[in-house]
Amino acid sequence: MTMPADGSLPADLINRQIRLAARPFGLPKPTDWDVVEEPVSEPVDGRLLVEVSHISLDPAMRGWMNDVRSYIPPVRLGEVMRAGAVGRVIASRHSDFAVGEHVYGQFGVQEYADSDGRALRRVDPAAAPLSTYLGALGITGLTAYFGLFDVGDPQPGQTVLVSGAAGAVGSVVGQLARLKGCRTVGIAGGPDKCRLLVEEFGFDAAIDYKSEDVKTALRKHCPDGVDVYFDNVGGEILDAALTRLARGARVVICGAISQYNNTEQGPGPANYLSLLVNRASMTGMVVFDYADRYAEASAELAGWLADGRLRSREDVVEGDVTAFPQTLLRLFSGANTGKLILRIR
Amino acid sequence: MTMPADGSLPADLINRQIRLAARPFGLPKPTDWDVVEEPVSEPVDGRLLVEVSHISLDPAMRGWMNDVRSYIPPVRLGEVMRAGAVGRVIASRHSDFAVGEHVYGQFGVQEYADSDGRALRRVDPAAAPLSTYLGALGITGLTAYFGLFDVGDPQPGQTVLVSGAAGAVGSVVGQLARLKGCRTVGIAGGPDKCRLLVEEFGFDAAIDYKSEDVKTALRKHCPDGVDVYFDNVGGEILDAALTRLARGARVVICGAISQYNNTEQGPGPANYLSLLVNRASMTGMVVFDYADRYAEASAELAGWLADGRLRSREDVVEGDVTAFPQTLLRLFSGANTGKLILRIR
Repeated sequence: MTMPADGSLPADLINRQIRLAARPFGLPKPTDWDVVEEPVSEPVDGRLLVEVSHISLDPAMRGWMNDVRSYIPPVRLGEVMRAGAVGRVIASRHSDFAVGEHVYGQFGVQEYADSDGRALRRVDPAAAPLSTYLGALGITGLTAYFGLFDVGDPQPGQTVLVSGAAGAVGSVVGQLARLKGCRTVGIAGGPDKCRLLVEEFGFDAAIDYKSEDVKTALRKHCPDGVDVYFDNVGGEILDAALTRLARGARVVICGAISQYNNTEQGPGPANYLSLLVNRASMTGMVVFDYADRYAEASAELAGWLADGRLRSREDVVEGDVTAFPQTLLRLFSGANTGKLILRIR
Repeated sequence: MTMPADGSLPADLINRQIRLAARPFGLPKPTDWDVVEEPVSEPVDGRLLVEVSHISLDPAMRGWMNDVRSYIPPVRLGEVMRAGAVGRVIASRHSDFAVGEHVYGQFGVQEYADSDGRALRRVDPAAAPLSTYLGALGITGLTAYFGLFDVGDPQPGQTVLVSGAAGAVGSVVGQLARLKGCRTVGIAGGPDKCRLLVEEFGFDAAIDYKSEDVKTALRKHCPDGVDVYFDNVGGEILDAALTRLARGARVVICGAISQYNNTEQGPGPANYLSLLVNRASMTGMVVFDYADRYAEASAELAGWLADGRLRSREDVVEGDVTAFPQTLLRLFSGANTGKLILRIR
């Protein structure tokens, strides 16, 4: 957008939004959202206006569309689809934010977002590409950081197994585990992703769940058992991982992408009694609980990223907000590697 | 047994033993064990002979009969069935144990046990009935103690839910939780057990899973959710309890009596993602890991028992060792309340 020289907004500025229209049954369909256009207004006192440039696409979004009690309320019908995003301040009557600054916030799937400034994080496009603030330097990286270090508590020399290992969170988990001195084994679908795990993210071994028997492969690649299993997928892979736990193992339940589009409840982890046999634990984590430590963790992640020990891979799709529904489906078809982002043209 | 006046053993003393004859498929059958008789010999140097009087019958025994990797090796075919038991020393060439002393040990399902004295605990029939050393003052009480306090970590005012609540471990868990100042809710089968929970063990509420919808009852009796769920049963009750977890809840996996006789693997807890939503954990525990703290815990349990704040209920079946197979089945039919013990006539 080109701003008028006087700093005011163009009079005819239109905000295209993706609003939730229906509760999906199974995989979301494009008709589960409406495209709505509304005029953009100047922010009122104490508020600012953000032009959204990068939208985070997350498996968790599927859960937010269901009308069930969860760790945050569902998106209401008619509401702009919830999404973390990065954008640039284009108008401000907020004392903390100036026009031209870049910010991260829960801006939703829309082109412009009006904000009261609360829960915004300033991001620096000179320090890292803006997309990285949705990847390793964003909630994705923080999820990996707190899930692995705080819940998983891996010790040097231990074996850390990660599912969805070529995905946004999984690829960071594997790298952080390696930084900690662990043996890292990733599970992903297909030879390309598995190659990526080893060659780009430094995993010690990769298991292709589409072509290998996961239990057999776990016996081979985790000969001393699994000390930390970081689960992003649930389903059969979780159940297979449970068969290979080491004594005192920690299972981190971060997500369950294989389950989110189920039209009826899938079976639970039948091998859960492995927790008893191995005195192991299985613990759910939600990154938002660690908000008071984001700054500390972000600084550490930024340091590793700067010195090359951590790589952030972003799968950036260019489009306008109407590309959101089809782009989101890439997460569930296994098409993406790394962090899936919709970059608004 | 009447001992000869000179302290030697009668020459014709016969030891009847229950030895594992077959790996059960489903519920054990009497033919899964053999009754074997063998002469009793005087103990050699450094060993002692125990006349077994009380045998502990535990759900875990069913697991020990399977040829699978678990927290202890399976009982081998032809081996005396493993069992904790209490008995009296009737001959000793061991410096630490004198004839006439009472001891607890893994004596197995047999009338006489020869022992090297390792892992024996001396018990005092003047302080409590011998059966109680298999109940609240035995491994049962220790399981409840460490499972609840160390793994469950209940805080005053929190809600503690227990399944198998009229059973050996469950009935102690409920009482310990109450001592800690928790609201205690027990799940058991049938009105008699449920009455017992409230009237004898002091539970705040009891849920009869045979006549009530457990999920509905949990909403009623645990209005603020469940902070600690102590699971002895697994299956549908575990799955129902998962729907009612409070934020940060701890699920203690102590056993899964509903699953032990399955002939194929039962379904896992389908609601396990409640762990994620509620940032909860599910942790397996095996009491043997706490052996170095048995003395401390036993002293505390004995104190509560002595001052009447803790009740130990034992379901004592009188018989000889050949009554073992049929008596064991009482555990799986739900016939017993409290600690099931076979008292050898």
